[in-house]
Amino acid sequence: MSRSDGRRPDELRTLEIRPDFLEQPHGSVLFSEGRTRVLCTASIEDSVPRWMSGRGVGWMTAEYSMLPASTGERSQREVSRGRPGGRTVEIQRLIGRALRAVTDFRALGERTVWLDCDVLQADGGTRCAAISGAYVAARRALDRFGLGKALPGSVAAVSVGIVDDVVLLDLDYEEDSRAEVDMNVVMTGDGRLIEVQATAERVPFARDQLDEMLDVAALGIDEIGRAQVEAAEAVRA
Amino acid sequence: MSRSDGRRPDELRTLEIRPDFLEQPHGSVLFSEGRTRVLCTASIEDSVPRWMSGRGVGWMTAEYSMLPASTGERSQREVSRGRPGGRTVEIQRLIGRALRAVTDFRALGERTVWLDCDVLQADGGTRCAAISGAYVAARRALDRFGLGKALPGSVAAVSVGIVDDVVLLDLDYEEDSRAEVDMNVVMTGDGRLIEVQATAERVPFARDQLDEMLDVAALGIDEIGRAQVEAAEAVRA
Amino acid sequence: MSRSDGRRPDELRTLEIRPDFLEQPHGSVLFSEGRTRVLCTASIEDSVPRWMSGRGVGWMTAEYSMLPASTGERSQREVSRGRPGGRTVEIQRLIGRALRAVTDFRALGERTVWLDCDVLQADGGTRCAAISGAYVAARRALDRFGLGKALPGSVAAVSVGIVDDVVLLDLDYEEDSRAEVDMNVVMTGDGRLIEVQATAERVPFARDQLDEMLDVAALGIDEIGRAQVEAAEAVRA
Amino acid sequence: MSRSDGRRPDELRTLEIRPDFLEQPHGSVLFSEGRTRVLCTASIEDSVPRWMSGRGVGWMTAEYSMLPASTGERSQREVSRGRPGGRTVEIQRLIGRALRAVTDFRALGERTVWLDCDVLQADGGTRCAAISGAYVAARRALDRFGLGKALPGSVAAVSVGIVDDVVLLDLDYEEDSRAEVDMNVVMTGDGRLIEVQATAERVPFARDQLDEMLDVAALGIDEIGRAQVEAAEAVRA
Amino acid sequence: MSRSDGRRPDELRTLEIRPDFLEQPHGSVLFSEGRTRVLCTASIEDSVPRWMSGRGVGWMTAEYSMLPASTGERSQREVSRGRPGGRTVEIQRLIGRALRAVTDFRALGERTVWLDCDVLQADGGTRCAAISGAYVAARRALDRFGLGKALPGSVAAVSVGIVDDVVLLDLDYEEDSRAEVDMNVVMTGDGRLIEVQATAERVPFARDQLDEMLDVAALGIDEIGRAQVEAAEAVRA
Amino acid sequence: MSRSDGRRPDELRTLEIRPDFLEQPHGSVLFSEGRTRVLCTASIEDSVPRWMSGRGVGWMTAEYSMLPASTGERSQREVSRGRPGGRTVEIQRLIGRALRAVTDFRALGERTVWLDCDVLQADGGTRCAAISGAYVAARRALDRFGLGKALPGSVAAVSVGIVDDVVLLDLDYEEDSRAEVDMNVVMTGDGRLIEVQATAERVPFARDQLDEMLDVAALGIDEIGRAQVEAAEAVRA
Repeated sequence: MSRSDGRRPDELRTLEIRPDFLEQPHGSVLFSEGRTRVLCTASIEDSVPRWMSGRGVGWMTAEYSMLPASTGERSQREVSRGRPGGRTVEIQRLIGRALRAVTDFRALGERTVWLDCDVLQADGGTRCAAISGAYVAARRALDRFGLGKALPGSVAAVSVGIVDDVVLLDLDYEEDSRAEVDMNVVMTGDGRLIEVQATAERVPFARDQLDEMLDVAALGIDEIGRAQVEAAEAVRA
Repeated sequence: MSRSDGRRPDELRTLEIRPDFLEQPHGSVLFSEGRTRVLCTASIEDSVPRWMSGRGVGWMTAEYSMLPASTGERSQREVSRGRPGGRTVEIQRLIGRALRAVTDFRALGERTVWLDCDVLQADGGTRCAAISGAYVAARRALDRFGLGKALPGSVAAVSVGIVDDVVLLDLDYEEDSRAEVDMNVVMTGDGRLIEVQATAERVPFARDQLDEMLDVAALGIDEIGRAQVEAAEAVRA
Repeated sequence: MSRSDGRRPDELRTLEIRPDFLEQPHGSVLFSEGRTRVLCTASIEDSVPRWMSGRGVGWMTAEYSMLPASTGERSQREVSRGRPGGRTVEIQRLIGRALRAVTDFRALGERTVWLDCDVLQADGGTRCAAISGAYVAARRALDRFGLGKALPGSVAAVSVGIVDDVVLLDLDYEEDSRAEVDMNVVMTGDGRLIEVQATAERVPFARDQLDEMLDVAALGIDEIGRAQVEAAEAVRA
Repeated sequence: MSRSDGRRPDELRTLEIRPDFLEQPHGSVLFSEGRTRVLCTASIEDSVPRWMSGRGVGWMTAEYSMLPASTGERSQREVSRGRPGGRTVEIQRLIGRALRAVTDFRALGERTVWLDCDVLQADGGTRCAAISGAYVAARRALDRFGLGKALPGSVAAVSVGIVDDVVLLDLDYEEDSRAEVDMNVVMTGDGRLIEVQATAERVPFARDQLDEMLDVAALGIDEIGRAQVEAAEAVRA
Repeated sequence: MSRSDGRRPDELRTLEIRPDFLEQPHGSVLFSEGRTRVLCTASIEDSVPRWMSGRGVGWMTAEYSMLPASTGERSQREVSRGRPGGRTVEIQRLIGRALRAVTDFRALGERTVWLDCDVLQADGGTRCAAISGAYVAARRALDRFGLGKALPGSVAAVSVGIVDDVVLLDLDYEEDSRAEVDMNVVMTGDGRLIEVQATAERVPFARDQLDEMLDVAALGIDEIGRAQVEAAEAVRA
Repeated sequence: MSRSDGRRPDELRTLEIRPDFLEQPHGSVLFSEGRTRVLCTASIEDSVPRWMSGRGVGWMTAEYSMLPASTGERSQREVSRGRPGGRTVEIQRLIGRALRAVTDFRALGERTVWLDCDVLQADGGTRCAAISGAYVAARRALDRFGLGKALPGSVAAVSVGIVDDVVLLDLDYEEDSRAEVDMNVVMTGDGRLIEVQATAERVPFARDQLDEMLDVAALGIDEIGRAQVEAAEAVRA
C-alpha cells in the first residue's frame, strides 16, 4: 500500500509553524501539518472563574471550532444550530486536558489562559494539530509576560491508524475515513503519555496492534516536538 | 494500600444483573456493579433515519443520563440547562460506538435499536456499567424478535486506574477521584479491543504502566462477560 | 362494562411501595401502582434560593421526568429537544404545590427539599403516583435528619375518570385514552382537598358527575394513605 | 369584608367586548373585564398539521402571552429567556382545550384555527378573560367564512376564590394574591362543565367550600355568556 | 402612478395618537399610521444595569414585537422558535439608538426606561411608527414623575421609498414590497439627522435619488412632530 | 487633528488582498485593511433552499463571525451563548444584501453561494472589509466554475465617520470608538449606491455633514475597487 502523497507509513506530513501570525492576541500561531491549518491563539486574563478565586492558582481552558468552509464541502456553522456539537465538545475537552497536564497552576497564579483553536482548513488530524499548536501559542503568550515557569513541560499530539492492516502515522482525511482503527496519542516532550484514545472504527483490534501504533506515535511526537521548540523560541518581531 | 471495601487491587465489585426489570420496553436490565446501578433498556423501531433508508442496513444509537439524585449530592437535571453536558455527550457517543462494533447491521435490516442507559445510582464506573448493561438489554430485545444474529459478538467494559501508584480494577467514586490515571477499556467477549481511553488526571504516565492497566482490564472484562452470558440467557418470565 | 384486569369500578390497582430503594439519596422510594412505576427521591440541601434567604423558612420543589422507554413505544428524551415539554412543566408544578400544601416551612428552616420523580414505567396515573410516592420519599428523608415536624400532614393523589359513562377509579393507560372525562384529585390524609383538576376530554360533563367522581376519589386516597403510612414507618435497613 | 371596588361577593367586574378591533386578522376582539384587557384574534388556515392530514377534520390551537408592561411592574419578555414559561404553557393548553371542547372538527374540515390571546393589561383573571374572548374571536372568524357550524356551542370562563373565608367571584389581582383557594371554571353556554381547576394556595379546603364556589361560578358564566352573544352577533362594520 | 389609497406621493397616511391607552404602565400610547397600529409603553425602573451603577446616569432600552396575527397571514410567535429573529433584533436596536439620541442620561439619573413597542396590526412602516410612538410614551411616563428634563429633544421617524422610479413617502405594505429602494429616516424635532438607512432592494440607486428621498422624509417628519406634541401635551385623564 | 498612524483624513489604511489563501474552499481570500484581517471564503452548492427550487434562479447568503481573540481583549465565542448576537445578525444580513445586489441569479442558475467572513483580527471596519473581501472570494469561486456571468458588477464598502467634527475615511477601532457619527457606505464599482447607514452615536448631525461623508466614501470605494480587480484577476496558482 502506498500513500497518496508518497509518504512512508511512519512519516509525518510537512510541518509549518508560524508564531505571532496576528498582532493583537497575546500569543498566536498558524500551525500547518500538510493541508490541515489551525490558527491557535492564547489570551491571558488576570482573574480566574469565581469558584476558584482566592486559592492562588490559575486556570486554562480551550475552545475549538472549524470554519464552515474549512473542509471541501461547506458544513453548517455551529452557532446556527445553537450549541457546539458532540464532536466539538469532546475535542475541546481533550485540548484542555492535554495542556493542563503540563501546566504549573501555582506558578501561573490567579490567571486564566484561554486557548482558541480555529481550524482554517481541515485535512485530517485537526485535534492533534490544535494541541501541538496551542502549546506554542501558550508558550509565546506566557513568555511575553514573564510567566514561562507556568509551562514547565511541553506537549504534542499525533494521530496513528490502521489502514488496510498497515499502521500509518499522521493520517490525512482520506486515509482517516478508510481507517479500521483510529488513535490519537498525546505525549509530553520527555516521552510520557498524557492521553491515549484508540477506537475500532470497523473491526476490533489486537493488543499487539495497539503496541505497534504506540511505537510509531512516539516517533512522530518527537519530530513535532523539535519543530515546536524552534517556533517557541523564535525572536519576537 | 488497602481498598475501602476490602477488595484486592484486581478484584471487581459485586455484580448483579436483573434482566427484564421492566415489562414494557423490548429489552431491559437493571445492572448493578457495587453501588453503581444503571437501568438499561433497548427499544427496536421498524425504520431507520431517513438518510440511511433504502440500503437494507440498520442503525443503533445510545443515550445516557444520570438521575439528579443518583449521586450523594443532588446535581441539576440536564434538561433544566437546555442540553446534554459535554460529559454526557462523550459518554453516549462511547456507548454507541462500543455496541455498534459488535453489531451486524445487515442482519438487523432496516431497524433502529435505541439504547437508553439511565443511572439510578452512581458510585464510579457508570459509563462502563452502561456499556456492559446495554449489551444485555440489546441481546434480550433482539432475541425476543428473533433478531439474535444482528448481535454476533458481545461487548463489555471496565475501568482501571492508578491510585497511589498502584493499578486498581473497577474504581469506585472515591478511588476515581483520587486516581492519577484513569482508563476505560472496552473489549469483545473474545478478547479484542474496541476502545482504549487512558487519561493522565494529574501526572503523565509511562508506557509500562499502560501495559499493566491493559492486563488487569482484560481479567475484569472476562469476568463481566460470564455474568452477561448468564443474564442474557435467563428464561423469560 | 368490565375492566381489562377485572377490577371493580372503584378499585385501585395493586400498590407496592419500596422505601429506601437506593442508598445514596437522603430519601428514596420505588412506588408501583399496577404497571406504573415511579422512582421518587428526596434530597435535602442546607440552603434556600438566594431570594428567600434570611427569613428562616425553607423551600420545596419537584421535578418529574419519564424515561424514554417507560412507555411501550420509545419517546424522545426531553433534553434532546432542549426543554421540558408543556405536559412535564404542568406536572412538576402540580407535584410541588401538592407537597408544599402539607409542609411547615418554618419547621423546615432554611433548607430546600428537592423531590425527583422519575417514571421508570408508565401505564397511566403517573402524576398521581409521583405525588403519593414523593410524600413517602420526603418523609423518609426528613425523618432521617430529625426534621419530621416539617411535614405535619400527609398527601396522596389519585385519578378518576368517566369511561363509557361509568365512573372509574385509578385509570390505566388504556382506560385513560378512552375516557370522556379525566380528573386528578389531591387530598390530605385527613380528607381535605388540595387540588381538583377535572377536564372534559371529549364531552362536557354535568355537576352531579363531578360529585360522584369526588366521592370515589376520596375512597381511593384513603387506601393509598394507609399504604403510605406503612412504608413511611418501615424500619430503616 | 368589602371589596376594594365596592362589588358584592358574587358580582362580576365591568365587561366590555369590542369585536373587530383590528381589520386584518380574520376575527379579533378586545375583551375587557375590569382593568384586565386581552386582545384575542382568530386566524383560519386552509390546512392542518401534516400528522392530521387526510382525515377530513380540522385543528384548533391557542397561544397566550402577556405584554411586558401589562402589569404595573414591567416583566421580562418571554422571548428574551428563550421559551414560554411554565405558567404560559399551562394557560395556552387550557385555552386550547376549552375551545376545542365546543368545536365540531368535522364541520370545520381540514382547517386550522389559530387563537392568539395577548394580554395588554393584566389585573387578575387573564386566563379566563382569554377563554371568553377567544370564543368571540373564533365565532367572528368562522362566521365570516360561513363556517359557523364548526362552533356549535359556546364557552366562557371565570375565576372564583376564597379570601378571608369568603367566596368571591371574578378576583382582581390584589384579591387573587391574598386568596386561600383559587379556582378557574370553564363552562359551556348551556351550563355543563368543561374544566374545573381548584387549588389550595395556603390551606386545604373542604368539600362544601368547593360546592359553594361552583355555584357562584355558574352565575358569573351565565352573565358573561349573554355579553358574548351580543358581541358575536354585532353587525360587521 | 397613483397610490391605492389616493394619497399624493409626499403625503403621510392618517395619523391617530391615543395617549394613556392603558392605565397600568407609566406611559402608554396607541399609535396608528394608516392601518399600522403599534402599542408603545414606557416603564421607568429606579435602577440601572449593574455595570452602569454608581455613575449617576440612566439607561434606556427598547423591545419590539409583532403579534402573530398582526399581518394578514398569521406568522409564528417568536418565542416559539426560541429567540428574536434577525429583523426583530435590528429593529429594537434601531429604536433604542433613536430614543437615546434625544435623552439626557444625567438628568434621568440612575433609572432605566424600558420602551416596549408591540405591533397590533402591521401594514408597513412599523419600525418608524414604533419610534414615533415610543417617543410619546416616554414623554408621558417621564412627565408623570417630573423627569421631563431627561428628554430635552423629540424624535420621529418615517419611511420613504422608490416605487416604479417615483419617490413615495410613508409606504404601506403593498408599496414596500414593490419598492426598488427602501429608506428609513430618523430625525429630531429641530431637523437634524439621527439615522439614515437606505437599501437598494433590487437596483442600486444614484446619489441624487438619495437627496430627493431625504427631502421628502423631512417633510413627513415635520408633520408627525406636530401630532406628537399634541398627544404628549394632552391633559391626563 | 492628526490620525494616530499619520494618515490624511481621506486616506485608506494599507490594503492587502491575498486570493486563494486556502486550497479547499472554492474561493478564498485573506483581506487585510490595516490591522483588520478577514478571511472570506465562497462555497458553491449545486442546489437552492427547497422553497426556491424549480424557478431556475440561485441564492446567495453570508455568515460573519469574529474569532474570540480577534480583538485585544478576548470575547466570548458566540456558540457558547447559544446564538449569534444582534450585531452579528445585522452584519451578516448587510453582507448578504450587498453581494446579492450585484448578482444575476438567473445566470447563477439553481445554485447557492455561501459566503463566510471570519474576522481573524479586528481593528475597526470589519463589516466593510468583509463585504469587499467577500466580493473577491465570490468572483474567484464563480470564475473557477465558468460562472463569472453570475456576478456582472462589483461591490465594495468603506466606513466614514465624524471625529472631533472632522470627516475621516476608514476609521480604525480607536477612531471609531470616539466618533460622533458613524457611517457605512456600500457602492458598486460603477459608482451607484447599494446601502447607506449613517448613525449619530452621540449628537445628531446636519444634512451637509451627510453630504461630505458621502463624497469621501466614494473616493475610498474607488481605490478599494482597483485593488479588488487586481486580486480577482490574479493568475491561479
